[in-house]
Amino acid sequence: MAKKDIAAKAIEIHKKMGGKIQIGLPVKIKNRADLSLVYTPGVAAVSSAVAKNKKLARDYTIKGKMVAVISDGSAVLGLGNIGALGALPVMEGKCALFKTFANVDAFPIVLDTQDPKEIIETVVRIAPAFGGINLEDIAAPKCFEIEEALKERLDIPVMHDDQHGTAIVVLAALINAMKVVGKKINDDKRRIVVSGVGAAGVATIKLIKKYAPKVSIVAVDSEGIIGKNRKNLSLIKKQLMKEKTIVADEKGDLADAMQNADVFIGVSKPRVLTQTMIRSMAHRPVVFAMANPTPEIMPVEALAAGAAVVGTGRSDFPNQINNSLAFPGIFKGALERGVMQITDSMKMKAAENLAALVKRPTAEHIVPGPFDRGVAAAVAKAIK
Amino acid sequence: MAKKDIAAKAIEIHKKMGGKIQIGLPVKIKNRADLSLVYTPGVAAVSSAVAKNKKLARDYTIKGKMVAVISDGSAVLGLGNIGALGALPVMEGKCALFKTFANVDAFPIVLDTQDPKEIIETVVRIAPAFGGINLEDIAAPKCFEIEEALKERLDIPVMHDDQHGTAIVVLAALINAMKVVGKKINDDKRRIVVSGVGAAGVATIKLIKKYAPKVSIVAVDSEGIIGKNRKNLSLIKKQLMKEKTIVADEKGDLADAMQNADVFIGVSKPRVLTQTMIRSMAHRPVVFAMANPTPEIMPVEALAAGAAVVGTGRSDFPNQINNSLAFPGIFKGALERGVMQITDSMKMKAAENLAALVKRPTAEHIVPGPFDRGVAAAVAKAIK
Repeated sequence: MAKKDIAAKAIEIHKKMGGKIQIGLPVKIKNRADLSLVYTPGVAAVSSAVAKNKKLARDYTIKGKMVAVISDGSAVLGLGNIGALGALPVMEGKCALFKTFANVDAFPIVLDTQDPKEIIETVVRIAPAFGGINLEDIAAPKCFEIEEALKERLDIPVMHDDQHGTAIVVLAALINAMKVVGKKINDDKRRIVVSGVGAAGVATIKLIKKYAPKVSIVAVDSEGIIGKNRKNLSLIKKQLMKEKTIVADEKGDLADAMQNADVFIGVSKPRVLTQTMIRSMAHRPVVFAMANPTPEIMPVEALAAGAAVVGTGRSDFPNQINNSLAFPGIFKGALERGVMQITDSMKMKAAENLAALVKRPTAEHIVPGPFDRGVAAAVAKAIK
Repeated sequence: MAKKDIAAKAIEIHKKMGGKIQIGLPVKIKNRADLSLVYTPGVAAVSSAVAKNKKLARDYTIKGKMVAVISDGSAVLGLGNIGALGALPVMEGKCALFKTFANVDAFPIVLDTQDPKEIIETVVRIAPAFGGINLEDIAAPKCFEIEEALKERLDIPVMHDDQHGTAIVVLAALINAMKVVGKKINDDKRRIVVSGVGAAGVATIKLIKKYAPKVSIVAVDSEGIIGKNRKNLSLIKKQLMKEKTIVADEKGDLADAMQNADVFIGVSKPRVLTQTMIRSMAHRPVVFAMANPTPEIMPVEALAAGAAVVGTGRSDFPNQINNSLAFPGIFKGALERGVMQITDSMKMKAAENLAALVKRPTAEHIVPGPFDRGVAAAVAKAIK
């Protein structure tokens, strides 16, 4: 379908549905006897038991199975800061994906505040009914602070999906792309350029460096290469340099960064990558152009310029590197095993499991599709 | 079933279910084409449209149909202040009732705070995704302040069910009970004693007085009759006197109040009413003993002492005066008609509609049962 047709059809279908999720009842209430067990007086015994032993909430209530998908609407898709109500259709969609791909129950909460402290307080206060918190489409850099604070204050897993869901799937794609081009990842000859140092970029950089410590990662934002020469860098970018997660002694623009790079990872802006830049890359270069909906370079152009493997975020090209491959399985695993934190080891294992689902990776097939069997189960297995 | 059996069976069934509500999908996502409409890229058009015209959220998202059932767990059933997790089974049950009785989608939110200001702020911040707010099991007197503030700050209906759901159903029961005993309600000879001046008591007193301004209402709390002689009365009790909603020039205990009363309405404590008190009432007295699970007096005792009509909150006796008759229909009507506030006129009309469902009221049949056909629809009709 053409872009315009998809938009019109999407609006039509949303109007018809009036909301993409609904409440279902695992047990129907058919008569007074049912009522006396599910509601008063029977429920009093359940409430008393849970109040006395809070751990029982996981067995007796939705806490054992319900994820909150929470956004302040400050960085929605490529649309930017469109606020709570604008974000709601996306959050509902996300909840529908949770159910579709992993049979995980998720409920959307969109917030009428964009203040980090208020967001943190609000999430802490509504957390009791939930078994996990999926933060979504919250702008950088506040997303880092919010996620860290919530991880510390809550005893349920908290994950900002724009960061970690993306990082996991990019790492999975990278593992298989490297197989296709016949290169080792954890090698000090490897040079990876990451364009875009927001939520997704930072988490991707960190996870790749953890997985392959020998690799050199060059980070490029809208002002050019992140390096010691740069002024007024945000705290998180300074940290990446200080901890030597990224190379700190280079300068220049994206074209400079791309010289001899093995891999380009774009989580930035449409059309920032040129064929000339790809031609300057190392032998058999890998290009992940994931800006949405228009990638950093169109696949046909990247391939023409010599890219050996190309991935995007889109479903209409091969190699869709999309976090819907990760988040349903992550929370499925976390809920099933009562995991309190999603650690880096779990994320790396999840990426490996995802990659392993593609038995023989080829240039056009480095990641599974979201509807492939066993995707959520493979990811969930890593969360323990 | 015996009380103990109900408790054991309730725990067993909750353990088996692991939560009484689940997420359902009105439209299944079967392939990439579905995905592109429900999620990216199609959803972007929906989000943009809603961000530009917030009213569209009612048509395109769950906002048009989703109620939040919110509690801080400070006054749960007869269990008292058992906190957020203890309250969760009750709130889930309430959501199950919403769906069962009125096909209204409702989601439970239990709060990790009991501070009125924090509760208000939290509800305001999470309100965007919801079309209505059902406050539940929040202790008096803070429940009054919280409800008032939220009604002022939100553009969706807010109702504290313990107050208004109860008031509506009591008024409905009173209308029919008066028919049974052949007395006019709005008559200056009528004397009604309300025992318990918490959330339910206050709202019931106010609604009856609005419906029947000529009636005399005597309010009794755990210290005795509310009157000018009493010291250290709460703000709301003083207001009831000042506005002449209740009689202010009496004093004494419940036994004093009951002399010549036509109606006893108990929303207080188990077993506070005696047969002697009933014997002191006016001709053909009406007794609503709604303390849960043990009423102010057992029906068999009340009848033996001469009560002409007896109602309780329990499902195992005739005349169950339970707010599950009201709240599903109230929100059904509010959502269907986009009503912003539930007014007193709507509540009185809802009570009349409920009462009218019983074609020929008798001593044992003054209110419909929750499973009777058309209950929610009749109540919903009043909300416009």
